[in-house]
Amino acid sequence: MKIYGDRQSGNCYKVQLICDLLGLSYEWIDIDILAGDTKDLAFLAKNPLGKIPLLELDDGRCLSESNAIVNYLAAHTDYLPSTPYELAKVQQWQFFEQYSHEPFIAVARFINKYLGLPDDKKEEYAAKQVGGHKALKTMEAELQESHFITGEQVTTADVCLYAYTHVAEDGGFNLSQYPAIQNWLTQMEELEGFTAML
Amino acid sequence: MKIYGDRQSGNCYKVQLICDLLGLSYEWIDIDILAGDTKDLAFLAKNPLGKIPLLELDDGRCLSESNAIVNYLAAHTDYLPSTPYELAKVQQWQFFEQYSHEPFIAVARFINKYLGLPDDKKEEYAAKQVGGHKALKTMEAELQESHFITGEQVTTADVCLYAYTHVAEDGGFNLSQYPAIQNWLTQMEELEGFTAML
Repeated sequence: MKIYGDRQSGNCYKVQLICDLLGLSYEWIDIDILAGDTKDLAFLAKNPLGKIPLLELDDGRCLSESNAIVNYLAAHTDYLPSTPYELAKVQQWQFFEQYSHEPFIAVARFINKYLGLPDDKKEEYAAKQVGGHKALKTMEAELQESHFITGEQVTTADVCLYAYTHVAEDGGFNLSQYPAIQNWLTQMEELEGFTAML
Repeated sequence: MKIYGDRQSGNCYKVQLICDLLGLSYEWIDIDILAGDTKDLAFLAKNPLGKIPLLELDDGRCLSESNAIVNYLAAHTDYLPSTPYELAKVQQWQFFEQYSHEPFIAVARFINKYLGLPDDKKEEYAAKQVGGHKALKTMEAELQESHFITGEQVTTADVCLYAYTHVAEDGGFNLSQYPAIQNWLTQMEELEGFTAML
């Protein structure tokens, strides 16, 4: 299978990470959004949404949306519970990640690290701090109760949340005020097969 | 089971709709965000995220995030495929809904219908039109290829996308330019058990 992605994107890193944790082999194809790779007609034929990451299976079928890809790859493994309630809890935290976490923490990181915090983005950056800390506080409270985000077993919800949380400081979020998150980051990095983001 | 929600919220309506389509019985508890109901300590004890909809099972366990709740309720029914790839496709469209559709179409609707499009929101409203039409064009292209968003079988992805698409005109989106979406809306409304949003 092929993964189309950008090594610096947390959303793409989620797919790399679950593959490495599960020992899956894949071909990584670097995509440069700024160079227009996702607007290329051959890419749009694979993913009309024009977004990365994109998973292409050996039979040509494709899948987009990082969290959906991660769940697909983890099907029938210990990273994905099989009972409906536990599976829904994983999805609850993944939707939280895409709606209440990534739009603040990943965007603040992009403004700060890649755009260099220009003056005309400072207001947006400040607004992202508020939402980002709300997400981190929610995670902190949960991680004070259990070792992983949905309980005592690591799941794809942890993999998806790890991607942008571990680089939250790039977006100006000081993680020293979140001790349970820091412990959880260490636990994630000690998992067998773990690989870092480049 | 109990559903805590606001009848005018598309995210809450998703949960009502899947229950009605599946013939599930539930107790609906009206929550008024503006009156502070979601900041109430008893509510926060059930959902630290302070968001609706919230599902409370008879044994007291709770679940938040509309799309996760809908998938939980539809487990082992025809609304949710059982094979990993088809299940991931459903999730792909649900993450699309929460990331690339709802933040534009639902927010434009809120600004227009509930805030009355005040002058200081006109710039944000205009920006939401761009993202909203991009989401609708993506759906239109897909629905020109198949009767439902993931293929020939209706799934929870359709239920979740229906919620804000069918009221997109409240947000200023003229659906007459999207004939496949209009046909799909009609198909959804003809499903056995379908109930309208109040």
